[in-house]
Amino acid sequence: MNKIVNSLTVIGLGLIGGSFALAVKNKFPNIRIYGVDQNPAHASKALEMNIIDEIKLTNDKEMLKSDVIILAIPVSAIQIVLSDLLSTISNETVVIDTGSTKGSICESVYQHPKRAQFVAAHPIAGTEYSGPEAAFPKLFEGKKNIICEFELCNDLAKKCATWLFETVGINNIFMDAENHDKHLAYVSHLSHISSFMLGLTVLNIEKDEKNILNLAGSGFASTVRLAKSSPEMWTPIFTQNKIHLSNALKEYILQLKAFEQELNSGNSKALSELMKKANEIKKVLD
Amino acid sequence: MNKIVNSLTVIGLGLIGGSFALAVKNKFPNIRIYGVDQNPAHASKALEMNIIDEIKLTNDKEMLKSDVIILAIPVSAIQIVLSDLLSTISNETVVIDTGSTKGSICESVYQHPKRAQFVAAHPIAGTEYSGPEAAFPKLFEGKKNIICEFELCNDLAKKCATWLFETVGINNIFMDAENHDKHLAYVSHLSHISSFMLGLTVLNIEKDEKNILNLAGSGFASTVRLAKSSPEMWTPIFTQNKIHLSNALKEYILQLKAFEQELNSGNSKALSELMKKANEIKKVLD
Repeated sequence: MNKIVNSLTVIGLGLIGGSFALAVKNKFPNIRIYGVDQNPAHASKALEMNIIDEIKLTNDKEMLKSDVIILAIPVSAIQIVLSDLLSTISNETVVIDTGSTKGSICESVYQHPKRAQFVAAHPIAGTEYSGPEAAFPKLFEGKKNIICEFELCNDLAKKCATWLFETVGINNIFMDAENHDKHLAYVSHLSHISSFMLGLTVLNIEKDEKNILNLAGSGFASTVRLAKSSPEMWTPIFTQNKIHLSNALKEYILQLKAFEQELNSGNSKALSELMKKANEIKKVLD
Repeated sequence: MNKIVNSLTVIGLGLIGGSFALAVKNKFPNIRIYGVDQNPAHASKALEMNIIDEIKLTNDKEMLKSDVIILAIPVSAIQIVLSDLLSTISNETVVIDTGSTKGSICESVYQHPKRAQFVAAHPIAGTEYSGPEAAFPKLFEGKKNIICEFELCNDLAKKCATWLFETVGINNIFMDAENHDKHLAYVSHLSHISSFMLGLTVLNIEKDEKNILNLAGSGFASTVRLAKSSPEMWTPIFTQNKIHLSNALKEYILQLKAFEQELNSGNSKALSELMKKANEIKKVLD
């Protein structure tokens, strides 16, 4: 039974925000769900698709009294609105963000008088698609959710976040923001750069798209899939996680250069050894 | 109806060779299928799984009289055995290779008296798995097959190859060997290096495998999938396609360095532009 949350606001009605709304609505149809999106087309679409019950503006008083407000907007936007949002809400409202970086977001409200009403979260879920049409209620089921600085939250915030993440079926991991950003640079953000730049390299050289279509197999499609991701979402993630990501990218380029050197000098044995080591990723993936 | 092929030999009973045998057997159960593999365990497994009807040795006289011999072994091994194999077969046998490089294989038999009995092919199909257990009859259905130097084949070779590829459901594209190797360097071989080295970078930094397991999402899994591929298969492909691949890799590293520079100088607009360009890969993939 849900006794703590009667109204929910989702700010940002894309894949993540929309999927939260749908998952909550599926289990608790009586919870009133407000939706906010700076793109009126996204807001209308979300209403039309019954993802939300009502469109609200960012400064709507009723919306600001919701039991829970989920921020599912680009990380740069989270950092801009979070502090003001906390200042505007009552003592009974909890704000939960879902951004893919945590360091600078947490830092921006570290000294805020209402810091205890904020839960910094990062659900590791998503696809290369975006917008309300991409949302689906089972997106989070069985996935991992990283919560940072949970010790700074008050009991109400802890309760609401626990309820929300249990409702959508995601499993929580707790971590400090610095470590979150460092690990994610390697296991997520770097993959995106690798894929974006692979797509760009192939597009630059294969001026005739038919060649790519005809000659590329499922391996290329898999490796380049993330190159379809939204620049609006990823630019601020990369910028906010610049220091860790820059290290990760440097390491990646060094590995590629080591491979290049062995390739150019015809050292088959060394190439094979590098690939055998890389094969160990099987243990993690299978 | 099949009137030209009564017996088929598959040399190399892995994913590709095994899938050819299974696809042919499915449609023409009366064709006798011989299997050759230097790994006795693979040969026995293929027999046990009814992928082949009989195990043969490489110098078996009956096997050498097969109507069609498919070479589905690493490209370095193809280059070693192809010329001798052509010298040993009768005038009625056709040899078809399936290697992922075509330049040096074609060159190695360009002046061979039986060159016309050889068809140089590359079915663009595969998974990251290997061995007879990975084989399945529908692997090739709807995929693309590149045939190089088809004009050098005699009528029998052309007929047998056309029959085989139609039987397994793959669509043929014709191209010269040089262009094949150049394009494949970009749309296939480079993806593998990108993925192998991404896997290695993450394994090197994330000494604790649990971190990767817990924090990596489906995006990482997709981008790093090819890092599970077989070094035995890919080392000779990379070595044989060294010149084109080295160019492709150089271009990729340049793109990554351009991204790194914009990241380090905090140029969000330039990062976004690079990603927007990469997004054009959607047109090809969707």
